[in-house]
Amino acid sequence: MQVSFTLDEIAAIAKPRKTAGATTESIRGIASLESAVPGDISFLGNPRYRSSVASTRASVVLLPPDYAGKPGPDQVHMTVDNPSIALARLCSRIEQSLWPRPKPGIHASAMVAADTSVAASATVGPLCIVESGAAVGERAHLQAQVFVGRGARVGEDSWLMPGAIVSAECALGSRVRLHPGVVIGSDGFGYEFVSGRHEKVPQVGGVLIGDDVEIGANSTVDRARFGQTVVGEGTKIDNLVQVGHNVVIGKHCLICALTGISGSTTLCDYVVLGGQAGLAGHLTLGKGAKVGAQSGISKDIPPGVSVRGTPSLPYMVAQRIFVLRNRLPELFRRVEMLEKHLGVESEKKPGN
Amino acid sequence: MQVSFTLDEIAAIAKPRKTAGATTESIRGIASLESAVPGDISFLGNPRYRSSVASTRASVVLLPPDYAGKPGPDQVHMTVDNPSIALARLCSRIEQSLWPRPKPGIHASAMVAADTSVAASATVGPLCIVESGAAVGERAHLQAQVFVGRGARVGEDSWLMPGAIVSAECALGSRVRLHPGVVIGSDGFGYEFVSGRHEKVPQVGGVLIGDDVEIGANSTVDRARFGQTVVGEGTKIDNLVQVGHNVVIGKHCLICALTGISGSTTLCDYVVLGGQAGLAGHLTLGKGAKVGAQSGISKDIPPGVSVRGTPSLPYMVAQRIFVLRNRLPELFRRVEMLEKHLGVESEKKPGN
Amino acid sequence: MQVSFTLDEIAAIAKPRKTAGATTESIRGIASLESAVPGDISFLGNPRYRSSVASTRASVVLLPPDYAGKPGPDQVHMTVDNPSIALARLCSRIEQSLWPRPKPGIHASAMVAADTSVAASATVGPLCIVESGAAVGERAHLQAQVFVGRGARVGEDSWLMPGAIVSAECALGSRVRLHPGVVIGSDGFGYEFVSGRHEKVPQVGGVLIGDDVEIGANSTVDRARFGQTVVGEGTKIDNLVQVGHNVVIGKHCLICALTGISGSTTLCDYVVLGGQAGLAGHLTLGKGAKVGAQSGISKDIPPGVSVRGTPSLPYMVAQRIFVLRNRLPELFRRVEMLEKHLGVESEKKPGN
Repeated sequence: MQVSFTLDEIAAIAKPRKTAGATTESIRGIASLESAVPGDISFLGNPRYRSSVASTRASVVLLPPDYAGKPGPDQVHMTVDNPSIALARLCSRIEQSLWPRPKPGIHASAMVAADTSVAASATVGPLCIVESGAAVGERAHLQAQVFVGRGARVGEDSWLMPGAIVSAECALGSRVRLHPGVVIGSDGFGYEFVSGRHEKVPQVGGVLIGDDVEIGANSTVDRARFGQTVVGEGTKIDNLVQVGHNVVIGKHCLICALTGISGSTTLCDYVVLGGQAGLAGHLTLGKGAKVGAQSGISKDIPPGVSVRGTPSLPYMVAQRIFVLRNRLPELFRRVEMLEKHLGVESEKKPGN
Repeated sequence: MQVSFTLDEIAAIAKPRKTAGATTESIRGIASLESAVPGDISFLGNPRYRSSVASTRASVVLLPPDYAGKPGPDQVHMTVDNPSIALARLCSRIEQSLWPRPKPGIHASAMVAADTSVAASATVGPLCIVESGAAVGERAHLQAQVFVGRGARVGEDSWLMPGAIVSAECALGSRVRLHPGVVIGSDGFGYEFVSGRHEKVPQVGGVLIGDDVEIGANSTVDRARFGQTVVGEGTKIDNLVQVGHNVVIGKHCLICALTGISGSTTLCDYVVLGGQAGLAGHLTLGKGAKVGAQSGISKDIPPGVSVRGTPSLPYMVAQRIFVLRNRLPELFRRVEMLEKHLGVESEKKPGN
Repeated sequence: MQVSFTLDEIAAIAKPRKTAGATTESIRGIASLESAVPGDISFLGNPRYRSSVASTRASVVLLPPDYAGKPGPDQVHMTVDNPSIALARLCSRIEQSLWPRPKPGIHASAMVAADTSVAASATVGPLCIVESGAAVGERAHLQAQVFVGRGARVGEDSWLMPGAIVSAECALGSRVRLHPGVVIGSDGFGYEFVSGRHEKVPQVGGVLIGDDVEIGANSTVDRARFGQTVVGEGTKIDNLVQVGHNVVIGKHCLICALTGISGSTTLCDYVVLGGQAGLAGHLTLGKGAKVGAQSGISKDIPPGVSVRGTPSLPYMVAQRIFVLRNRLPELFRRVEMLEKHLGVESEKKPGN
């Protein structure tokens, strides 16, 4: 994307305590200290990269108060309270130019049923569909090729990106972001085995997505069998995550990519799930529980407990077991030596 | 969604043997015994919730013949042969109002090529595409933004939800349900390594989806290299599942979310795959084989056998190994004690 | 699909050294030796199927020079230098009829902004969207319902299948294939925890997809926090793969289905990742490194090294550990026997 900042603009956003050096470059990019070239702004956000500041080719470097070095030729050092936050503010400015607020209104190619409630300040982009009885709140943005089904609700300032799908009767809160390809309200996976066939259990519940939830590309959230599947306020879900029917996710959870949560499981607030984690159904994960990547969870987890592995164990125990697992060749040899020492006959299997 | 039942309507559907109590509420929701509020109907489907019946606030409770308690004030007990089935019948009624049968016909915004065969009773919704030579059967429903490629076939009473994609020359049987974002007929993942590059192996086969198959949101089924990738009658596939090229899945299988099946593997009838299972290519899983969640399968599985783990083991063996794995710290200590007892020098690594 | 070859056409493509036998069938299908029926062409690509040649019902069989048998009645044997390559050439011919080159031009239903650069030889299919400032190269094919965002670039001869999404400012090289439902340029998963909430870190970088890259159905590639997420030339990615922000993938890598690569990890050239592999963030996998299916990687991998397991180990070590893990019941018995022999009291837990 096009980045273009003058030094004055950067200073107005980053509010430096002090500035040293000078540059003739205008700022056209952002980069890490190592990969920056002239025309870039960079920052020291993590002390371990401190030694990279002296050699960076960035034209502007945001530095913490305790950094003592001098800028190179054609380079500006700006000392700020928190370089990461200063950079994030610059990025927010860029984000606004990357994603300018769209003009309100309904695109001529969008299909909006007559009996919907679409706020005048909302944007319904090209080739979007809003079915009968649906509601779209103030300043909500249906970007393009979005589907909002019968009776569904999209809260104010929410942003549904291309190809996002909100099925009938599902509800999104305010400031929700659905990335491209997200599916809200597909049927839960429920069948009864009758006479040699899997008969479908009707899935007639809904989905409730709380305020400030963000859901990554191509993730899926199933509607409840009855009642509601719930994703709590402020929870962030990565790409390609599966949330089963009647799952209840608390507030401010983090769920990494390719994780699967089986039906009727409950996550309390502030739960963190690593990538590719798998949770069985009907479990409860207590407040602040943490699940390591690729772990398989088949039991409740108490509040604040971190687990890892399949089947999972408390984090420190799992670490210990992993180490000992790797020492199995040694342990077999030690036992064999004891057997030899005692003249005890081993039951070793042939070939080992 | 809007639920509204009178007691008479419920009785007509649930066919109670006997009814006790009375309520002034009309029924506006369905809920579990614990979460029900006045106006809800609930049910005792699982004996372990028996104790919750006395305290439930549901206005109507469906109960099995062996339940002996009395209804509370403003509450009705209906005794039925099977509360779960009675509830499912009520839910089917709700399902019909949630998903009313669409009017037949082709939406003005749909793009249907001239040389297609679309049944007069079929519905082709807004912004759908049906390419040249494709066929859409009686009462089939292409909901919205669906793509049906050249020469593809959609069987009668099938339902393709928003954003579902059926690529050229692929065929769906009758009563197939594709949830939003499903992709049928993407290319198989096949390359030959030639002169330092991966040269594409053409994927010119198709996909055959049998009758009564249901495929969950954003799942993908690759077309065959040649011949057909097959999903057998009555098989149910959850969300975000990958089915590789030339895979043959039998009848009435269940495949849970985030599972991957590599190319040319065969599942016989009634196979069950847990969530996030992974199958290597060119394997055969016998009739009724069961694979635990997150298991990795690299060998054939005989009929009726259950396996678990990566690499997988027979279920009971895997359970035993998991238990012993967790006892490794104990085993190391026991061996160390034996070594001390005998004065044998251990080869323990430093730091352990 | 419709296959129709005369013997002369096959000979023109396969260029046999010699031909034996005769058939009255025209060739209407391709099949393996075992599943072929009259009217099919088949081939001996792998020596282990040599014994199937004598019994195959295929009307034409492509055979290597060292095969000595005679054709059956109504059957032709064609001896070619390399049966696999000869078959691939036939399949390429079929592929052209399965996917005929579309006519250049912009479909009447496509939405192409005025200030785009779409080559006259490119095809923009029905219901596609090309936003302001985007560029679509010579002979590129946006098949249907494709989204190309503001300022994005699609290189020449690239093919974007139905429902593929290329977000703003992302760039595809030449001959890139995106299968249905692919999302390029969703936001990276980045938050800072501030006052009990996850505050979004703006993701203002882009995605660069190199020449000859192919990405499978419903896979997702996140845009960089700043800078670029990169997929190198010739790399092939399977279905349902997640590529995190600022990941850099080298040239000619293979990434199998359902794999997840966390942010800022680097894959050098020729890396191979098995299905459902999971990589932590900020790692480097050296040139030619190989990761087994379902493995979990949390450390750098040197060039050329193969690893397996979670946490992963060098391939041969992992194989050894897997074998010993399965012998844990034996080891526990052996230690118990030693304890009994010595009269040492065990610390066995009750019930084991």
